[in-house]
Amino acid sequence: MKYNFSDKVLALKPNAIREILKSASDPGVISLSAGNPAPDAFPVDAIKEISQNLLNDNPISVLQYGISDGYTPLRDTLKKYLKEELNIISDSDELIIVSGAQQVMDIAAKTFLNEGDTLICEAPSFVGALNTFRSYNTNLVGVTVEKDGMNIKELEEKLKAYPNTKLIYTIPNFQNPSGVTMSLEKRKALYELAKKYGVLIIEDNPYGDLRYSGEDVPCIKSFDTDGIVIYSGSFSKVVSPGIRVGYMVANKDAMAKMIVCKQGQDVHTAMWSQMVCNEFMTKYDFKGHLNYLRQLYTKKANLCMELLDEYVVPTGITYNKIEGGLFIWCTLPQSVDMLSFCKALTDKKVCVVPGNAFLTDSAIPCDSFRINFSTPTDDELTKGIKIIAQVAKEFIR
Amino acid sequence: MKYNFSDKVLALKPNAIREILKSASDPGVISLSAGNPAPDAFPVDAIKEISQNLLNDNPISVLQYGISDGYTPLRDTLKKYLKEELNIISDSDELIIVSGAQQVMDIAAKTFLNEGDTLICEAPSFVGALNTFRSYNTNLVGVTVEKDGMNIKELEEKLKAYPNTKLIYTIPNFQNPSGVTMSLEKRKALYELAKKYGVLIIEDNPYGDLRYSGEDVPCIKSFDTDGIVIYSGSFSKVVSPGIRVGYMVANKDAMAKMIVCKQGQDVHTAMWSQMVCNEFMTKYDFKGHLNYLRQLYTKKANLCMELLDEYVVPTGITYNKIEGGLFIWCTLPQSVDMLSFCKALTDKKVCVVPGNAFLTDSAIPCDSFRINFSTPTDDELTKGIKIIAQVAKEFIR
Repeated sequence: MKYNFSDKVLALKPNAIREILKSASDPGVISLSAGNPAPDAFPVDAIKEISQNLLNDNPISVLQYGISDGYTPLRDTLKKYLKEELNIISDSDELIIVSGAQQVMDIAAKTFLNEGDTLICEAPSFVGALNTFRSYNTNLVGVTVEKDGMNIKELEEKLKAYPNTKLIYTIPNFQNPSGVTMSLEKRKALYELAKKYGVLIIEDNPYGDLRYSGEDVPCIKSFDTDGIVIYSGSFSKVVSPGIRVGYMVANKDAMAKMIVCKQGQDVHTAMWSQMVCNEFMTKYDFKGHLNYLRQLYTKKANLCMELLDEYVVPTGITYNKIEGGLFIWCTLPQSVDMLSFCKALTDKKVCVVPGNAFLTDSAIPCDSFRINFSTPTDDELTKGIKIIAQVAKEFIR
Repeated sequence: MKYNFSDKVLALKPNAIREILKSASDPGVISLSAGNPAPDAFPVDAIKEISQNLLNDNPISVLQYGISDGYTPLRDTLKKYLKEELNIISDSDELIIVSGAQQVMDIAAKTFLNEGDTLICEAPSFVGALNTFRSYNTNLVGVTVEKDGMNIKELEEKLKAYPNTKLIYTIPNFQNPSGVTMSLEKRKALYELAKKYGVLIIEDNPYGDLRYSGEDVPCIKSFDTDGIVIYSGSFSKVVSPGIRVGYMVANKDAMAKMIVCKQGQDVHTAMWSQMVCNEFMTKYDFKGHLNYLRQLYTKKANLCMELLDEYVVPTGITYNKIEGGLFIWCTLPQSVDMLSFCKALTDKKVCVVPGNAFLTDSAIPCDSFRINFSTPTDDELTKGIKIIAQVAKEFIR
């Protein structure tokens, strides 16, 4: 049957990465395309113990309806944690629990964007978020990511060129997919521009706790005295993505409307997931777990960069060194057709993500591809990167 | 700060019932306003055992990312179950898992409604769903619910009057809040009208398994040879609402677009919740549990109706006898102001839901209120209904 879809979803296509992941799950394929935590990263024993205790001591709270704002003890725990660790959440802010940070993007887009309104994002940026914005018929405008974050001059040009801009979406720490961290100067400049042009900022920070070297940079939300920053946090990379728990912080007046949208989407986030997070943060060594994750991923990131330096860089491919996060952004010489290169990798059973998937329009030419080092084993990573080098030698002469 | 909200959410207000529930949770208040399952209704021991086994045997599957369509074994289990029990799901249909049935409403509205488009619903209807539809700036048009379901003549008049109607929303079994079950004749007539006017049907069936007397009536989806019915099911009333698991069945072409919207909202539904449902359906006595629930609620429903007959009906209040579900719809004589009556009940610490909350516009006059019998204890129910009778005597002279 021919359906009449709404204008906003008419052009909507499945998230390219999640489609790639389907083929990447074939046996024998080395997937450097996912963004999954390493299997070793999950605090399995703690969660097992927590679950048993919750279902012994408090089963009705796990199974009964909760409130849309989220499980109150978890909200309180997070407010305290974010205040202490990141100096965010003022008296005029509120925090609610969402079903993964993806929901923050959906709710913010729904609440602040009319169809055709402009959202400015980094180019490249996280395809999952871009797809959510697309699902509201949003005009996506990209701003080039430099080694220290968005090109601020270009950002202002775009703000001037698109007066219907309502939101700026940024991942300031270890950006997905570029791996870039935005400098403090640029964070402040971005904030001032948003203020000047009456635009809200979505600060998406799923990787903030995964820094392997260098110094932490203050969150944009930490200097948000004007109530213009919507902060998004997630348990996906630090506890588990399968539990689907994230949180958002925003000014109370903005949040009052966003809570109604949250309620309309799924009433509330699954109680077991919320209660597990709260128990883990309050009764277990959460900070110790974060240290463990940083150690685990520092090793993997270093291995990946060493392998790239040894095998791939000599072929002519360049990449951005990273200080945190889960991704490395590799760039081919302009003479090479990136999509043919990625296709050749797939034929050799190595999956990476073609860089154009992360652009506002996948038809824009792109010389880069993204690799992930958290999901593959060290062996798979080594094999995969050697194959990338081997294919590169065939393409780059 | 003054925010510029999108047109679609500008007039959006919190779900009236969930606001009432906040005050209903005060100690000493008898809440007949919720729609929560009875605490006795949860299969606590089974879930405890399932959770322990899952986290022992398969922790990574519980904690890692899943796919947006849902946990494949649960999807297969549900397809088989729905085929056997309800004769729904044809070869051209697909089933996906969602984070509670509320998400079906959100996804269907997003996929098929432009702002200003009309959705026809029963009047009264489930406020949670109506609020979700409102969040897409939908024109809600109500059709009177009679003792055997929608007034079909009125439905056709409305379909003619609103040529921009895209969806009809119905709860055919033990409708919330009226308690009414739509007759087979009306289901067929509704289906034919939807087909004639090129409109899709959302069939919301959260209470279908909770029939206490009378005979099952075939689902509308069971005679959907045209791919025009979106069927919504839920584990909220038969396993647990806190786990947030529902499912939807629709034609594959419609579903392909809806899955992308689901992905944009929360990537996928929490894995623990999905896996618990599948284990419970396949390795435990799911049908035995449904029988147990029917026994539990038959007792409560009968107690409620007996109390109403003994104390409330003599005051002049009427109500619809029910054959299933969790709600009873009571109607005051026209001489009584319903909102003042509900307010007087609240002053006596009994909470019910004013009927106007269930209308397309809460400003429409309404003489009815909804009571729930699943959440209160038998003692609370008895006390609450006696207080309703007592207040009624003061109002009806």
